[in-house]
Amino acid sequence: MKHTRAPDVVVRRLALYLRVLGEVAADGVDRFISSRELGDRAGVSPAQVRKDLAFFGEFGKQGVGYEVRVLQQELQGILNVDREIRVGLAGVGELGTALARYLYRRFHHDGAYAFHLVASFDVDPDKVGRPVEGDIMVYHMDELHDVVRRLGLEIFILAVPAGAAQAVADACVAAGVRAILNFAPVKLRVPPGVRLHISDVSLELQQLAYYL
Amino acid sequence: MKHTRAPDVVVRRLALYLRVLGEVAADGVDRFISSRELGDRAGVSPAQVRKDLAFFGEFGKQGVGYEVRVLQQELQGILNVDREIRVGLAGVGELGTALARYLYRRFHHDGAYAFHLVASFDVDPDKVGRPVEGDIMVYHMDELHDVVRRLGLEIFILAVPAGAAQAVADACVAAGVRAILNFAPVKLRVPPGVRLHISDVSLELQQLAYYL
Repeated sequence: MKHTRAPDVVVRRLALYLRVLGEVAADGVDRFISSRELGDRAGVSPAQVRKDLAFFGEFGKQGVGYEVRVLQQELQGILNVDREIRVGLAGVGELGTALARYLYRRFHHDGAYAFHLVASFDVDPDKVGRPVEGDIMVYHMDELHDVVRRLGLEIFILAVPAGAAQAVADACVAAGVRAILNFAPVKLRVPPGVRLHISDVSLELQQLAYYL
Repeated sequence: MKHTRAPDVVVRRLALYLRVLGEVAADGVDRFISSRELGDRAGVSPAQVRKDLAFFGEFGKQGVGYEVRVLQQELQGILNVDREIRVGLAGVGELGTALARYLYRRFHHDGAYAFHLVASFDVDPDKVGRPVEGDIMVYHMDELHDVVRRLGLEIFILAVPAGAAQAVADACVAAGVRAILNFAPVKLRVPPGVRLHISDVSLELQQLAYYL
């Protein structure tokens, strides 16, 4: 299904709704969810839920709500996560190792989880050539271009030191990666057409401080 | 200075602007920045920059822009980060350790960095009683209430396993913590008046996937 491009804030909320639906579906019973319950669990108003979903079509029934499994599948389709997406990880320090463990467990314990971390990269000769977790091998950074092409990596997670992040991002882009999640505390430049998200604990703390 | 409460998206962008100003100020020269340059570096339009700042008052001069150090101080005041904010960390696994190292370094190398991680908590007897990094001691979870009060912890970072997160959040709230940044992949419930932010790599990846 093709849609008009949704605003970033709507995409962010859809991901939240999908998480809520996953929690509800884990109860194991086929059931419906109202926009009120979905909103309550996601922390937004029922009106916002209805407006966000209306952006993509007609879902749910008046007075009954949404069928959890059906809405789940619809949102997975919209968010592009109804297929396996191969992910690479650059930087196998403490943060990178924690992320690798988390993603390995999620992918192998949740059949609907789209993100498959298949390769990681570092420059440390003690790390290269061994798995960081399960079957996730650590390759040398110099192999990044070849491995991206060979294994079809689509999204990269950057958990490298700040000073190395731009060079690694450039290498990812040159290899054809079109989406990067950057954990390095530094602003990166990527060409148009490449989507860059930042995960920055300092930014999060600064937002929280506003509400103190 | 007191302001009308700003929308969350504006607060998020203010934190981004402050990061850009920090990068620019690091050049060491006193200088001005236009809303175009600030917007370019933060990834938003110049009009959005002007609108966001206008929410809080009059900054900058027509045709000249904003004095970097002045705007930095203003934004620090608005975001409440012009003073030391004492932070606690629950969970000293791989992710918690990575966060502790990062925050320790930021606070001790950047004089303007507001967030001071002063205590961490775990249940592992091998970890309790030793520092996780520098002078950041690991306390037992059972001591959380007392330590929060004694050290004046205002913000908590949760890096505990999903199954433990709600109990730890409840303990934080009971001790008087009013802002929580949750890294555990689970939806938490907190009472009104407590601000909860989520840092979830799966949510980030799902948003990125939309743009593939």
